Amino acid sequence: MNKITILAMGLIGGSLAKSLKENDFASQIVAWGRNDRSLKKAKALGIIDSYTLDLADAVEGADIVVIATPTLIAEKMLQQLQPLISEKTVITDVASVKGNLLKAAKIIFGKVPGNLVLGHPIAGSEQSGIEAAKADLFKNHRVILTPTAETNSDAKVLVESMWRATGALVVEMNVEEHDRVLALTSHLPHVLAYTLVDALANNHDGQDIFRFAAGGFRDFTRIASSDPTMWHDIVLANRKAILSGIDLLSENLDQLRKSIDQKDSQAIMSTFSGAKAARDAFTEMLAKSQRNNESPE
Amino acid sequence: MNKITILAMGLIGGSLAKSLKENDFASQIVAWGRNDRSLKKAKALGIIDSYTLDLADAVEGADIVVIATPTLIAEKMLQQLQPLISEKTVITDVASVKGNLLKAAKIIFGKVPGNLVLGHPIAGSEQSGIEAAKADLFKNHRVILTPTAETNSDAKVLVESMWRATGALVVEMNVEEHDRVLALTSHLPHVLAYTLVDALANNHDGQDIFRFAAGGFRDFTRIASSDPTMWHDIVLANRKAILSGIDLLSENLDQLRKSIDQKDSQAIMSTFSGAKAARDAFTEMLAKSQRNNESPE
Repeated sequence: MNKITILAMGLIGGSLAKSLKENDFASQIVAWGRNDRSLKKAKALGIIDSYTLDLADAVEGADIVVIATPTLIAEKMLQQLQPLISEKTVITDVASVKGNLLKAAKIIFGKVPGNLVLGHPIAGSEQSGIEAAKADLFKNHRVILTPTAETNSDAKVLVESMWRATGALVVEMNVEEHDRVLALTSHLPHVLAYTLVDALANNHDGQDIFRFAAGGFRDFTRIASSDPTMWHDIVLANRKAILSGIDLLSENLDQLRKSIDQKDSQAIMSTFSGAKAARDAFTEMLAKSQRNNESPE
Repeated sequence: MNKITILAMGLIGGSLAKSLKENDFASQIVAWGRNDRSLKKAKALGIIDSYTLDLADAVEGADIVVIATPTLIAEKMLQQLQPLISEKTVITDVASVKGNLLKAAKIIFGKVPGNLVLGHPIAGSEQSGIEAAKADLFKNHRVILTPTAETNSDAKVLVESMWRATGALVVEMNVEEHDRVLALTSHLPHVLAYTLVDALANNHDGQDIFRFAAGGFRDFTRIASSDPTMWHDIVLANRKAILSGIDLLSENLDQLRKSIDQKDSQAIMSTFSGAKAARDAFTEMLAKSQRNNESPE
C-alpha cells in the first residue's frame, strides 16, 4: 500500500490513522481537513506522515481515500472528490448512515461508482476529536461494509484489508438493512437518552433531580453526552428509519403504560422478562465473542 | 447497639449485614427469611451471627429491624411485624418506593408509628441475591430517609447512624418528593430499557439485531437485565408517579419526532445540546463528589 488519505482528523479518522500507522499498513498516511488545528495535532502526535488543506493534493495518487468527516459533510465531500478521483483510487467512508451517501453518489457520479465501498465501523465514544483518538478503537469491533452490485471486488478487498489491519471484524450488509438495524440499536437509544435527559433537566426540579440518580441512570444516559451536531446529522441522514424506530418504541411504551395503569401483572412481567432474557443473551454473546477474540487464533 | 435484625438476605440485606459486621456496628446481626437457602449462605459467609425462620424470635429485643424484602412483600412484613414489635424497636426498610409503605403503615398501625423510619439506599446492581452482596455497596452512595412529622427523632438518629456506618451519605426527603424523583431518575429509565430491548427482540430481525449493537447500546440497556419481579413490584408500588414519568417522556419524544420529521434542525439541536449540557453537568457533579469523598475529611 502506497498512500492512504484520510479526510478529517476527528475521533474516527485519527484513530484509523493511528492504528494503520502502528501497523505499518501504508508507506504514507496523509490527512486533509478544513482547517489545520487537528491536522497539526495529528502530525505532532506522529499518527500521520503529512497533511494538506488542498484536497486535490491530498488525494492525488492515493490508493484509498477515507471520508471521515461528519455524516452530512460526507455528502459534500463526494461532490468535491468527483472531479479529482480516478477509478484507480478506492473511496470509502466511516459514516453512521449509508443510504443518504449512496443516493448522493448516484446523483454526483451518475451511477454507483465501482470504486466506492461505503463502510461503518461500529466503534466510537461519547468523546470526540483527535484528542480522543486511540489505536485500538476498532480492535474486535465490527466494521460493516455495504457494497452494492456495482462495487468492484478488488476495491472491496482493499477496504477489508485496511480494516482487518486495525483488528476489526469485517461484515457485509446491504445499505437498507444497515440503516434499519443501526436506527434501532444505535440511533434510537441516542434519541431516547437525549430526550429523557433534556426532559428531566427542563422539569421543575431542574438539575437538582440528578443528585439522586444512581448507577443505572449514569449508564443509561451516558450517550446523552455525545456530540449534538454529529447526532443531529445522523438523525437527518437516517430520518425515515429513525422515525420508524421511534414509532416502534412509542407503541410498545403505550402498551406497557396501559398494562401498568391496569395493574396487569402478567403483561408487565412478560415485557420485563422478555427484555431480561434478550439482554442476558446479548451479554452472553458479548462474553463469548470476547473469549473467541482472546484465543490464540 | 445490641441486636439488628434484617428481614431477608438478598443483595441489599446481605450487603448491609456484611458492611455492619465488618464495621462491628452491633453485637448481634440476626437474619430472617421465608426459607433458609440464603440464610445458610449468609451464615456460612460469616456476614450474620445467626438466623431463624421464626419472625417473632428474629425481632425479639432488636434495636433495629430492617425490612429488606422485595417492595410489595415489605407491605406484608409491616402487617406481620405489627403484633410483634414494641415502640422500643425501630423499624426501617430499603424499598425503592415509599408512598405505598407509608399508606400501608397508616392502615396497619392506625397511624404512622413514631418508631418507623422509611429509607432507601440509592445503590444496587443488575445482579441480585446474597451471592452478589458487597460490604462496600453503600459506600459514598446516598441513602434517602423519609421521616414524617410523626417520626420520633431518636429513631431517625439510630437509622442514620446505621447507614453512616456503611459509608453512605444520608439525606432526607419527603415521601412524595422521593417517589416522584425516583420515578424519573430510576423507574422510568428501567421501564424504557425494558421496553426497548423487548421491542427489538420481538422485531422481525429477532435477536440477530443485537449482533450489531455497540458500546452505547450495551450501557443503555444494561438495566434491562435487572430482576423482573423486583421491577414489577416497583412499577405497581409507584404506579402513578411512573405513569406521569412515561407521559412526560412520551410528550417530549412526540415533540422530537415532529422536529425530526420536519427536519427542524434548530429544535433537534436544542434538545440534543440541552441534554448534553445537563448530562455533562451530571458527570462533573459525580466527579466532584468522588473527589470530595476521597479527601481526608
